[in-house]
Amino acid sequence: MNDRFLRACRGQAVDRTPLWIMRQAGRYLPEYRELRERHGFAALYREPELAARVTLQPLDRFDLDAAILFSDILVPAEAMGFRVRFDPGPVLDAPVRSAADVDRIGDVDVEAEVPYVFDAIRLLRRELATRVPLIGFAASPFTLAVYLVEGGGSRRFEHVKALLFGEPETAHRLLDRLTEVTARYLEAQIRAGAQAVQLFDSWGGILGRNEYRELALPYARRVLERISGLGAPRIFFALDLAHALTDVGESGADVIGVDWRLPLDEAAQRLGRPHVLQGNLDPCVLYAPPERIREHVGRVLDSARALPGHVFNLGHGIHPDTPVASVEVLVEAVASASRR
Amino acid sequence: MNDRFLRACRGQAVDRTPLWIMRQAGRYLPEYRELRERHGFAALYREPELAARVTLQPLDRFDLDAAILFSDILVPAEAMGFRVRFDPGPVLDAPVRSAADVDRIGDVDVEAEVPYVFDAIRLLRRELATRVPLIGFAASPFTLAVYLVEGGGSRRFEHVKALLFGEPETAHRLLDRLTEVTARYLEAQIRAGAQAVQLFDSWGGILGRNEYRELALPYARRVLERISGLGAPRIFFALDLAHALTDVGESGADVIGVDWRLPLDEAAQRLGRPHVLQGNLDPCVLYAPPERIREHVGRVLDSARALPGHVFNLGHGIHPDTPVASVEVLVEAVASASRR
Repeated sequence: MNDRFLRACRGQAVDRTPLWIMRQAGRYLPEYRELRERHGFAALYREPELAARVTLQPLDRFDLDAAILFSDILVPAEAMGFRVRFDPGPVLDAPVRSAADVDRIGDVDVEAEVPYVFDAIRLLRRELATRVPLIGFAASPFTLAVYLVEGGGSRRFEHVKALLFGEPETAHRLLDRLTEVTARYLEAQIRAGAQAVQLFDSWGGILGRNEYRELALPYARRVLERISGLGAPRIFFALDLAHALTDVGESGADVIGVDWRLPLDEAAQRLGRPHVLQGNLDPCVLYAPPERIREHVGRVLDSARALPGHVFNLGHGIHPDTPVASVEVLVEAVASASRR
Repeated sequence: MNDRFLRACRGQAVDRTPLWIMRQAGRYLPEYRELRERHGFAALYREPELAARVTLQPLDRFDLDAAILFSDILVPAEAMGFRVRFDPGPVLDAPVRSAADVDRIGDVDVEAEVPYVFDAIRLLRRELATRVPLIGFAASPFTLAVYLVEGGGSRRFEHVKALLFGEPETAHRLLDRLTEVTARYLEAQIRAGAQAVQLFDSWGGILGRNEYRELALPYARRVLERISGLGAPRIFFALDLAHALTDVGESGADVIGVDWRLPLDEAAQRLGRPHVLQGNLDPCVLYAPPERIREHVGRVLDSARALPGHVFNLGHGIHPDTPVASVEVLVEAVASASRR
């Protein structure tokens, strides 16, 4: 098996920088759009065979160094009994707005509630056996709380912030419950065969630094602690968190994923302690001509030279209108420019 | 006249911290919604009497220390001949996408093209004579470029980033032209009577630090330089720019406005050199009960103690669904907690 990705996560020597792409199985691929058209979005992650097929699509096209389970970020919400629709983004029928709503969230047996996730992982491990490692994932407790309280996407995050600022005790109780569910969910993914996991702190960046330290970081850290010692590297993806990178550096993760806002060497400095980093090409670079893509790939690799380890990725999920040809250039550029 | 705001901008002693609110004349006010319902949005800034009335609305309700001209951020685009519709956000009929589009942008006589802005300022100065100072404003060249290239609001900024990454020379030529227009526009506002101006770098934060230093900061700095020495303090509002605050500190502005992501003392540290700061209560704090609002106002004031000057504001424009009663609490809290 190509273990470049796992080796880099552990800070071990590699022949070249490994690469995977956030949302690599997604709408920019015509074969993905075709499956989604035929089966609808929900079936793609709720039916293990389809989830496995979608997961493998980018690997059949590009020489990537890891697979990431195709799933939806709100699966833990489904496991907790929330009804999630897609319109086209996720919408919750009954968002969490009060202390009573929080109290209704009970203990969850994730393996019984969303067995399709773990079935898909087992299926994929068989298919991937001699190819590349499989990454599992979950939203951080705070990010999951944002979805549950807003009831879907948001621009101003008014409901979740009203809760945080207005009823901090209720917010803490909600986060505490989501921490337990998230830890169990990732534990179960690892037990089913996920060889690494990524915790997405996609919305932590909407918080001021004080609130981040109080309401987001401690719960993410607890999740990461709970799944340490299971043999799977733990990646913590911190989006728009340049103001709180020193705090992110205390998450306890094995790898920190960062967005495109800071060069990797500068992100490393702000993190305080040495970390393997993942990232961080601006996904919009893939709209540019090949020579520019190569130039920007070179800059990212340069900024990673002094790190204890580097996993190449975009600084955010790949955009749906990205030309497939640009991804080919990216894959080729990372491989050729990083070969030791 | 109450000159607390101008004194604080200049780092002079004040009896208490001055306060104004970004978008203080806006949808959270029922009297604003009524005027907008009756006249439509465009008339509110294109007819000087209406612009003046809207500008004065928040001052008739609250004890604020400055007025800010009610206008639209895309007025300079209208002056350049772009047609702007509101649906309900601004939409440009013909966005800038190519070198040829950029070359069509010529010199602009802003006073001839959008006289209503300067008429409104003159009208307001008469009305405000013995009350509070009047602030003018413009978007930074980069932020204006985002609107012109995207053709309106955006989530992924794919068009403007495609231009920056794919055709940097064209992007620089566009920014160069927008710098000239923006400088003239602010100069003309000051000449008409604006006693301070704010340059909004609302979208600079979508850029990585390297791109910010190359494509956003230099043009903002040129605008700020061009309007120095005219007697009007120049505020530079930096949204989501924690990753580039050291660069923002080189803008040459008299006052730096920051969002809620960093406490003011920490923002000051990252700016590198001493600045008067403006900000930075999270606007969502205004969804919380009065005692929490007072608590968070206290924290902002505490974090500003060592600054050479402080203008209280939100860290972003006030949200349309903010309760008016919360603004009353805010005004009262800032006044009572900051009295020397």
